[in-house]
Amino acid sequence: MEGESQRNLSDSRRNISKKDQERSASRLERLASHMAAVPLVREAQLARQECAKVKIKHQVHVSTLVEFLTQGHQSEQEKVYRFFLERPHLQTPVEIHKDKHRELCMRQLTAVVREAGIRPMDLLLNDPASYFVFTEAIGHIDLSLAIKLGVQFSLWGGSVINLGTKKHRDKYLAGISNLDYPGCFAMTELHHGSNVQALQTTATFDRLTDEFVINTPDEGATKWWIGNAAVHGKFATVFARLKLPSPDSHLDKDMGVHAFIVPIRSMEDHSVLPGVEIRDCGYKVGLNGVDNGALRFSNVRIPRDNLLNRFGDVSRDGEYNSSLPTVNKRFAATLGELVGGRVGLAYGSVGVLKASVTIAIRYALLRQQFGPPNKPEISILDYQSHQQRLMPLLASTYGFHFATQYLVNRYAEMKVTHDDEVVADVHALSAGLKAYITSYTAKALSTCREACGGHGYAAVNRFGSLRNDHDIFQTFEGDNTVLLQQVAADLLKQYKEKFQGGALSVTWNYLRESMGTYLNQTNPVVTHREGHGHLRDPNFQLDAFQYRTARLLHTAALRLRKHSQRLGSFGAWNRCLNHLLTLAESHIESVILAKFIEAVNRCPDKDVRSLLKLVCDLYALDRIWEDIGTYRNQDYVAPNKAKAIHRLVEYLSYEVRGVAKELVDGFGVPDFVLRAPIGLQNGQYSEYMQYVGF
Amino acid sequence: MEGESQRNLSDSRRNISKKDQERSASRLERLASHMAAVPLVREAQLARQECAKVKIKHQVHVSTLVEFLTQGHQSEQEKVYRFFLERPHLQTPVEIHKDKHRELCMRQLTAVVREAGIRPMDLLLNDPASYFVFTEAIGHIDLSLAIKLGVQFSLWGGSVINLGTKKHRDKYLAGISNLDYPGCFAMTELHHGSNVQALQTTATFDRLTDEFVINTPDEGATKWWIGNAAVHGKFATVFARLKLPSPDSHLDKDMGVHAFIVPIRSMEDHSVLPGVEIRDCGYKVGLNGVDNGALRFSNVRIPRDNLLNRFGDVSRDGEYNSSLPTVNKRFAATLGELVGGRVGLAYGSVGVLKASVTIAIRYALLRQQFGPPNKPEISILDYQSHQQRLMPLLASTYGFHFATQYLVNRYAEMKVTHDDEVVADVHALSAGLKAYITSYTAKALSTCREACGGHGYAAVNRFGSLRNDHDIFQTFEGDNTVLLQQVAADLLKQYKEKFQGGALSVTWNYLRESMGTYLNQTNPVVTHREGHGHLRDPNFQLDAFQYRTARLLHTAALRLRKHSQRLGSFGAWNRCLNHLLTLAESHIESVILAKFIEAVNRCPDKDVRSLLKLVCDLYALDRIWEDIGTYRNQDYVAPNKAKAIHRLVEYLSYEVRGVAKELVDGFGVPDFVLRAPIGLQNGQYSEYMQYVGF
Repeated sequence: MEGESQRNLSDSRRNISKKDQERSASRLERLASHMAAVPLVREAQLARQECAKVKIKHQVHVSTLVEFLTQGHQSEQEKVYRFFLERPHLQTPVEIHKDKHRELCMRQLTAVVREAGIRPMDLLLNDPASYFVFTEAIGHIDLSLAIKLGVQFSLWGGSVINLGTKKHRDKYLAGISNLDYPGCFAMTELHHGSNVQALQTTATFDRLTDEFVINTPDEGATKWWIGNAAVHGKFATVFARLKLPSPDSHLDKDMGVHAFIVPIRSMEDHSVLPGVEIRDCGYKVGLNGVDNGALRFSNVRIPRDNLLNRFGDVSRDGEYNSSLPTVNKRFAATLGELVGGRVGLAYGSVGVLKASVTIAIRYALLRQQFGPPNKPEISILDYQSHQQRLMPLLASTYGFHFATQYLVNRYAEMKVTHDDEVVADVHALSAGLKAYITSYTAKALSTCREACGGHGYAAVNRFGSLRNDHDIFQTFEGDNTVLLQQVAADLLKQYKEKFQGGALSVTWNYLRESMGTYLNQTNPVVTHREGHGHLRDPNFQLDAFQYRTARLLHTAALRLRKHSQRLGSFGAWNRCLNHLLTLAESHIESVILAKFIEAVNRCPDKDVRSLLKLVCDLYALDRIWEDIGTYRNQDYVAPNKAKAIHRLVEYLSYEVRGVAKELVDGFGVPDFVLRAPIGLQNGQYSEYMQYVGF
Repeated sequence: MEGESQRNLSDSRRNISKKDQERSASRLERLASHMAAVPLVREAQLARQECAKVKIKHQVHVSTLVEFLTQGHQSEQEKVYRFFLERPHLQTPVEIHKDKHRELCMRQLTAVVREAGIRPMDLLLNDPASYFVFTEAIGHIDLSLAIKLGVQFSLWGGSVINLGTKKHRDKYLAGISNLDYPGCFAMTELHHGSNVQALQTTATFDRLTDEFVINTPDEGATKWWIGNAAVHGKFATVFARLKLPSPDSHLDKDMGVHAFIVPIRSMEDHSVLPGVEIRDCGYKVGLNGVDNGALRFSNVRIPRDNLLNRFGDVSRDGEYNSSLPTVNKRFAATLGELVGGRVGLAYGSVGVLKASVTIAIRYALLRQQFGPPNKPEISILDYQSHQQRLMPLLASTYGFHFATQYLVNRYAEMKVTHDDEVVADVHALSAGLKAYITSYTAKALSTCREACGGHGYAAVNRFGSLRNDHDIFQTFEGDNTVLLQQVAADLLKQYKEKFQGGALSVTWNYLRESMGTYLNQTNPVVTHREGHGHLRDPNFQLDAFQYRTARLLHTAALRLRKHSQRLGSFGAWNRCLNHLLTLAESHIESVILAKFIEAVNRCPDKDVRSLLKLVCDLYALDRIWEDIGTYRNQDYVAPNKAKAIHRLVEYLSYEVRGVAKELVDGFGVPDFVLRAPIGLQNGQYSEYMQYVGF
């Protein structure tokens, strides 16, 4: 039944989408009339005129906004959307059994590569920025598809290309690219997710046959959660401890974790190969279009050539050689090549947030409930609590967009220049933004569902699948808590090594200056200033963010030094762990704000710039208010200023509400991609009625 | 496949459950040895000895703790658990299609009533405390079943019994009770969820035929989300505007919203009756065992007797009469009778929280990842960040348990005495606790999933279904944002009417005293005191909670008065909405803490009492720390004291971690009910291996 309703929905959406152009012309008039119909807002507007120092122009052309946001990539996304729009049989229905979803997902992937003529592997290698834009669009079609695609190209393909050498590229690239060789990335084990350096699977070199022998030594070493393994994969990049027989001892030498290409299913009849055991990890909270499996190996033999040998190799006679001197450095180099996955997740998470925020805000504009005595009911977005719930979320989405756009560009730069400083920057930034944004989006998805009340609970309105599918973004490709510790560790390293005159990486540069401010006393005049001009000055905002980061960094370094004498470095780290996580988050927020402010400043269109400035102010001040305890404890902000910030956040939320429609339209997710009846640009209720069959 | 694995799992669980008794004897030894195996904890323990003013006794007998928590109701829950344990065909599999789930859920309900011989309707009417304990156990089996049961007995049954009169009880009670009359509660409409007083469905009296004629005047008046309507319901309590033809005018007189019994399907062949249209609301985010439908009526005629006439009646000649003078009062009385649903949701939400916290904490004790150099890996619950994540959550669960237990007892008291003061108390308290606890649990479920990393994402480990099913607890039976406003309104009413000498309702009584403290200056000596004895003194903790509530109440009253002159009362309320929601939450937290402290004090067992005191301290101080900005802004807490509170929260989290296993065992959810392999008392990994088929 759902399948059919889904198709009806798509048909009518196609019509809606045709009318899009005519509609955008009359958008301003409708907004004006809509606001006029809301008495409360007018009253409140009068009462708040004294606050309105910055007058917001409502003459925003949404198309200009979209153009500025997409930076010329719009047509690539539209190509994906159109492809699926024209193929209803490739659209994922609202309810679908795991097994059918997996088959559909594979068909979708095959169609993208073989029918739409898009070559994700080429994009990833030659034009990474376009690759990430493309996968964001794929995620809007179905997040399972985006992950299935990521497993095939970024993880399986990426491991072969980045950890292997020319012989691997020659042998596998074409097959990976055209899907003849579907593959897996077999890193995680039952007992080891975050601590991958402790993986237990072994690959022992057999000099007699010139082969590696892959084994699963115990239950805990079972490869777990391996995408593409349960059904479709023919190969796997298996991470295992390289063991070399030692002439002096009956114990093998452990060379640490390396990656190996292991065929797992027959190219002829897809049967599981001897020595390989595969089980289905089963139904998951989300992403059920991806076939995750568990793998065990028992004396599986692979040629020596199957070692992905870019960072370490074994010769015919069993000698190990590597340009990198230690196990740790080799392991870091290996993992380092996989950073693209995190970039993709951070970027894709913002895509999910855009869809979710669009649905929640369009519904909040439509939905009316209660009102002043003997007057019409008002939109729920006219309630202060609803503005407080959704407007900072909308502002954050814009901030995250600009920050991840910066990250993607840095990643593309890194792939060209291989500059050490850029590499370090991309590593820490991708870890931090992935962790911060995916955690934020996960919470935001719940907030959006709740904001849509009962109608948010209908599966057709998308919050369920978005939340369930996105949920694991917080865990895979690095658990967020672990990633934030990497950011903190990187900050501390820079603090120790480079603070006294050395070069800080670009993104970190602000810290030197802020540390100066922090170490000096705060200026008592500034701590009391509460005018809007001051509070909305990007210099004040940035300083507040960076001051906090500098303070957290300095005090963390002191506390770690103090505790490590008694507890050792591991114990001291654990003793300061909450502090370190807060430091990492604070740093990431500083980066997001800085990128947001840069985006505002470079925006060529005056109206769009003024709109973005408003949104950026809300982002900055809301964050400061959310952490006001810290600012008060340091007397960085006096009590009167704290109150002024709070009032301004409420006022800015109210002002952003006035342009909320334009701001979500600016995300440019078409109705037929968004799909949720309550999130459409128009006719939401009637579309919803139609969906249930009236 | 899942069905089969599910059965295997149950079989092995049965064995586990048999061994339970033997195991509990050796619990202490294992805990001690477990802790000894963790070098970090020992190191940290040494380092923290200076903090350990209160020595926690680990000699807790879990059975004593369970006994104190369940207050003699344990066997009722065990009866439910055993019934389902012995009937694998009635257990819900991990993945199930909506339609099959609905049929299973109906079979489960029928089996409970007709095979297990439990009569929920009788329990609800005669022993409400037992009814809520029983439904908590049912929720552990499947939340869909708990809601399906709630629709049948609490909503459909409750509306007939509480809004009707003897004739209705005589005609319907037996059929409702034995499930011959499955029914619905048709209140919500497409356009009206929260503002039910604005419902648009009409029931017009036809004097000629002595009937009411039920109509759906427009799209927005379509009844929506009606549980039991899509498949099983034969009757519905329909909320509609009572219209009486007026002799003087061609317009009918609108008497406001009343409830009517409307047959919707034939008793003979279950066909939908003429004039009734039913559609399926379709797949939902969760609770897919419940068949929610949409209903439209077109000239559906029902006898005059079908008006549920306890609060208002129509005579044979079309005269309206009621003991209540106004539409508003009648509507309030009608809704007031439905308060039991909220009590049940608050209580049930704590049950969900218990299950979720148990799984997350057991897994965190099992899971080891990373560790000091050249030493074994440590349990993730030994990380400060993980303690910070889960220990306050565990403490809150205990607080909520005692608060909702109090609510249930007050509800039972109300049903006996009908005392006005108790009625008012139960109304405000059920609204507040339902809103606060369900919001908290929803967030906690996400936290627990994240805390279990990848393995938390396996559907078999329960977080997905628990979160999806529980999600709507925040919305139905009153949207949480709306309910909190009712609490705030009630506080303000008491503030205005009774503050000067009148009697405050029992739960509110503390406010008079606190208001005194608040209006006087805070004592500068107290604001600086930071010793553990002071911070762990329940008087300090309660004072902090109540001071905050009193301050928020007083300032809200002042702000409302100020703004209402210019904005009118509706505009002023909206202008202060964030403030009012904070006030309501603050009050509810005060109530929870008060009930927690009372429970600690009345606990007869010394060891359990000392354990609960520790947990209560963590609850209180964590809440204060979370809102430290407020306390600092008011200088209720000096900077040094703020820091001391933060340190103590981290220390108490560490200390509670040492007894976390006992504390979750104390919730008494048996392994075969909990079901999640990673949440079992023992053998989690091997159970999980078995589940995927190894």
